[in-house]
Amino acid sequence: MMTSPTNTESTYTAKAPIDFYFDFLSSYGYFASLRIEEIAQLYGRTVQWHSMLLGVSVMKVMGLKPLLETPLKGDYVLRDTARYIRLHGLTLARKISDPMMDPRPAARAFYWVRRHHLGAEAAFARAVYDRYWRLGKDLSLPHEIAEIAAQNPSLGIDPNELQAGQASETSRQDLREAVALSVDKGVFGSPFILVDGEPFWGSDRLDLLDHWLARGGW
Amino acid sequence: MMTSPTNTESTYTAKAPIDFYFDFLSSYGYFASLRIEEIAQLYGRTVQWHSMLLGVSVMKVMGLKPLLETPLKGDYVLRDTARYIRLHGLTLARKISDPMMDPRPAARAFYWVRRHHLGAEAAFARAVYDRYWRLGKDLSLPHEIAEIAAQNPSLGIDPNELQAGQASETSRQDLREAVALSVDKGVFGSPFILVDGEPFWGSDRLDLLDHWLARGGW
Repeated sequence: MMTSPTNTESTYTAKAPIDFYFDFLSSYGYFASLRIEEIAQLYGRTVQWHSMLLGVSVMKVMGLKPLLETPLKGDYVLRDTARYIRLHGLTLARKISDPMMDPRPAARAFYWVRRHHLGAEAAFARAVYDRYWRLGKDLSLPHEIAEIAAQNPSLGIDPNELQAGQASETSRQDLREAVALSVDKGVFGSPFILVDGEPFWGSDRLDLLDHWLARGGW
Repeated sequence: MMTSPTNTESTYTAKAPIDFYFDFLSSYGYFASLRIEEIAQLYGRTVQWHSMLLGVSVMKVMGLKPLLETPLKGDYVLRDTARYIRLHGLTLARKISDPMMDPRPAARAFYWVRRHHLGAEAAFARAVYDRYWRLGKDLSLPHEIAEIAAQNPSLGIDPNELQAGQASETSRQDLREAVALSVDKGVFGSPFILVDGEPFWGSDRLDLLDHWLARGGW
């Protein structure tokens, strides 16, 4: 009975990837980036990574202030992230309160990688996050983007091509279109996850996402 | 060994109550109100309930729009609350998108109860939440506050005294002071929980709160 065509149908039906949206600026996005692939794999899902910009969704579309500049909430976020870091035993050279980088070069580089090294963009995103948050490097300048490729040769990306590519009009346009599309889909925070159209906002919803995938929704 | 003075010291040291802040308007506050006492009891804690006003913390102090009027986030909240309601098998006559009541009469009544029936304020708050969210009654008008006492005789509160009391200058002042004190403590959302000074914001943090209490912090 277990091997009848009906019961094994699901093995022939590929499950849709999980869409994982993040801003490289976002500590909570970084935290989620460390767990999302593991959760997806538990349920036979792949993850499609999408770099987005909180500066567009939160500040322009929603008309809100940056998180750390919001009275009361800013102080809470400092404590909450410190608590998360302690709980998960992370070591971050960057402090949450350190000045933020301009996230656009890294975000454009992400879309350049997706266009020219399709399949490597998730590993590239993890390398960006690692360099920014764990190692505390600023990635605002083009030569610092090149360093991501230089320091991670397993990515197979030429540093000079990456540095030039992130500045190209095509990469700028790819980022603009990706961010606009994310807003069209209702994505506003980082991390933000879509599973078969169901939205999950925030690293504190990963357990709920896990539960959703385990039950197949409810 | 287990009964030595040293090992039983903790049984003689009363643990501080958990401070639970909520706005009667808030669906997430309602959800948390259904779980907070059970979590506290697991760890030998009592709960001190505090009615607060998002209209002060979120709108005046933080300068933000109401949640449902915030682009993108409003749509998300509608889906997220519906998902929570299905998961927990709740039945609510009130829709999240229904017009909101003026929460001040109920909040003033809460402080009147605390002043005149100390110890009954948590049960009163649960009765307010039940009447507003589960039964879908508007509680903006004074006679509707009286109904809370009339429909819940086990509270031991005289409906007419409650209706008059919520309108008193003392109750108005008690509410103003409580809300100001909550802002001083960094409370901005609903629900918001303080455990020995450690803040937890949101009904999606109750599992983290549970973990914190189990480990005694980290």
